[in-house]
Amino acid sequence: MPTVSITRLARFSAAHRLHNPDLSADENTRLFGKCNSPNYHGHNYTLEVSIAGTPDPRTGYVLDFTELDRIVDRSCIDLLDHKNLDLDVPFLSGILSTAENIVVACWGQLEPVLAPSRLVRLRLWETENNYVEYDGR
Amino acid sequence: MPTVSITRLARFSAAHRLHNPDLSADENTRLFGKCNSPNYHGHNYTLEVSIAGTPDPRTGYVLDFTELDRIVDRSCIDLLDHKNLDLDVPFLSGILSTAENIVVACWGQLEPVLAPSRLVRLRLWETENNYVEYDGR
Amino acid sequence: MPTVSITRLARFSAAHRLHNPDLSADENTRLFGKCNSPNYHGHNYTLEVSIAGTPDPRTGYVLDFTELDRIVDRSCIDLLDHKNLDLDVPFLSGILSTAENIVVACWGQLEPVLAPSRLVRLRLWETENNYVEYDGR
Amino acid sequence: MPTVSITRLARFSAAHRLHNPDLSADENTRLFGKCNSPNYHGHNYTLEVSIAGTPDPRTGYVLDFTELDRIVDRSCIDLLDHKNLDLDVPFLSGILSTAENIVVACWGQLEPVLAPSRLVRLRLWETENNYVEYDGR
Amino acid sequence: MPTVSITRLARFSAAHRLHNPDLSADENTRLFGKCNSPNYHGHNYTLEVSIAGTPDPRTGYVLDFTELDRIVDRSCIDLLDHKNLDLDVPFLSGILSTAENIVVACWGQLEPVLAPSRLVRLRLWETENNYVEYDGR
Amino acid sequence: MPTVSITRLARFSAAHRLHNPDLSADENTRLFGKCNSPNYHGHNYTLEVSIAGTPDPRTGYVLDFTELDRIVDRSCIDLLDHKNLDLDVPFLSGILSTAENIVVACWGQLEPVLAPSRLVRLRLWETENNYVEYDGR
Repeated sequence: MPTVSITRLARFSAAHRLHNPDLSADENTRLFGKCNSPNYHGHNYTLEVSIAGTPDPRTGYVLDFTELDRIVDRSCIDLLDHKNLDLDVPFLSGILSTAENIVVACWGQLEPVLAPSRLVRLRLWETENNYVEYDGR
Repeated sequence: MPTVSITRLARFSAAHRLHNPDLSADENTRLFGKCNSPNYHGHNYTLEVSIAGTPDPRTGYVLDFTELDRIVDRSCIDLLDHKNLDLDVPFLSGILSTAENIVVACWGQLEPVLAPSRLVRLRLWETENNYVEYDGR
Repeated sequence: MPTVSITRLARFSAAHRLHNPDLSADENTRLFGKCNSPNYHGHNYTLEVSIAGTPDPRTGYVLDFTELDRIVDRSCIDLLDHKNLDLDVPFLSGILSTAENIVVACWGQLEPVLAPSRLVRLRLWETENNYVEYDGR
Repeated sequence: MPTVSITRLARFSAAHRLHNPDLSADENTRLFGKCNSPNYHGHNYTLEVSIAGTPDPRTGYVLDFTELDRIVDRSCIDLLDHKNLDLDVPFLSGILSTAENIVVACWGQLEPVLAPSRLVRLRLWETENNYVEYDGR
Repeated sequence: MPTVSITRLARFSAAHRLHNPDLSADENTRLFGKCNSPNYHGHNYTLEVSIAGTPDPRTGYVLDFTELDRIVDRSCIDLLDHKNLDLDVPFLSGILSTAENIVVACWGQLEPVLAPSRLVRLRLWETENNYVEYDGR
Repeated sequence: MPTVSITRLARFSAAHRLHNPDLSADENTRLFGKCNSPNYHGHNYTLEVSIAGTPDPRTGYVLDFTELDRIVDRSCIDLLDHKNLDLDVPFLSGILSTAENIVVACWGQLEPVLAPSRLVRLRLWETENNYVEYDGR
């Protein structure tokens, strides 16, 4: 029985700012540069969600992409799209909104609701020139 | 003597919100939907700047792309990148930050500083699924 | 008052076959090659819909992209997506389903329902290496 | 001696339909939605073929990309391109043509003819928003 | 009778150097910067060839894309691909190999052999961030 | 403590030629085909650099992308961009410039200067249709 992974790309547009309130203004500027710009900036993010499993003999699906969409929308995209990541998103509350921290937080949102499917990788693109990946470890 | 147009793509990441202060909150919600989200959202924008002219016989250039870059950076990208389009950008002050209005305002920034080159078209991508174009008329 | 064009990209996945029933099998093979394959093949098509107008001072929009989406979906995408272009689409009935003919037929669908907005260009991608354009003339 | 993987992208355009003949029409509609559309739909697929090995000191190649192309064309692309996946492709006969099942079947085609090169991963894109991966296990 | 334009993308990989032999070494460095690098550099170019016409009622084609391919390959791509634009290409001989000059030279190659089809636009991408366009005027 | 990988895409344009001086002209032609073209050809390469680590609680970064850029530029891109890979690049001296060999040589450049960050994968695109990957083993 082969194990196949399936991946869905989901997109959201959001504002954010990198700012650590425990540090001085100078330190924030030094660490985050233009990403510390006070009134926020933003991105078109792309989230790639990969789950793995054995295709169901009756459907040929690991999981119906339509169902995967619904789950990803409900637990991530609907909460992130057209939002301010630092002010509007309960599951990012108190978290510095780097791509690294967002992708780990998205794992926390998706992993429980995807079971018994097995989430195996998240990739988050922030711009066309950088992305981060997390596999739950 | 052939006339050739040359186009440079420049990118910026910015936050914004669609909100007309002359209208009620309800009206703003009705007109702008999730783009009216109070704490801003954001995009990776791509601006395509096209100028036309006759290639210089000595250089084969309509305009050196490096020089075009410098002009586009100084009059647009440096003012827009990692900014809030509604709060931080003097040349957008008082303007509803739709892609339509941004592209016209960028024309106003670029047209004078590109002369005697001839700006012929601006295209502004807001997401990978929509763009606007303006040719100065 | 500036005139700006706005463009929306819409996607559909469809099957089709190039076959002219007025010609012999041999002639069809000679003219259409592998596109004449008897049991259909298919594509992920992308349709770019461009309309032009003056941004509304109250909204900054030529037309709300959400409204444009709705119109394009209702008059084109819903009728084309996951369909057989030769068997399932009333507005393509009796038409050889080349990209050229599809784009002209889509113009016929969109032009009346977009008024008083002004449809100015349709571009239809059949693969990542070819597209057709029509501007109503 | 370093082990490097090399990947070639190959493209094919095909029609298909998701329909399990052992199930009722209602069940097929419920399970496959618009993918069960009776007269087929289609996609531009992209297949990424990855093989791994030690670069040959004489050529610097793991495998000449031209030779890899030839193998991928002969055992997959020529059989899939401009075809109906449910009717025309012997190696998919009797198989529900989900991306999951296609990618496993392509492995079966490629693995023997690539030896002694080592096939390590296949990725199959069905649209720009979803892909599946298989590594032979 | 509608007029439709059809566009084919063709790709070539080539080396070149910007250097005007009538100027001093210093002047060449000043004008062309790193593009004057003595031992050449290179690009993956993409050429978009657009022709316009009325679809033939018998075929639905302005021109069969396969035939357009053949023409573009024979008069441009075969002469440019895997070549040095400054040393190997007769139709660029004595021409500074800027994108502007290449696109005009390609027009000279394509315009006569495409008649009676009507070549209406060439676009040449040098990198993913810049392109030039020529329409024969 | 989660381990996240972060990836930066960096681009360079370079000329090269595949030619093994220990082999006859005929053998070189047979092995390398058009890639053996005597006066070089070229590509727009994209290098994806992936490093892994635990996000720093103070910054949320595995490594600041700006710092990663600086390192990748200094040890790879500045030495490769607008160069001839066979004549101008000390760290490729005496190496057949296949994508396989370039990616391994880039690992040798990057691995020491990235410590104590952990380089985990390099992917090098030569054209939009082929890439190679190396993970240091």
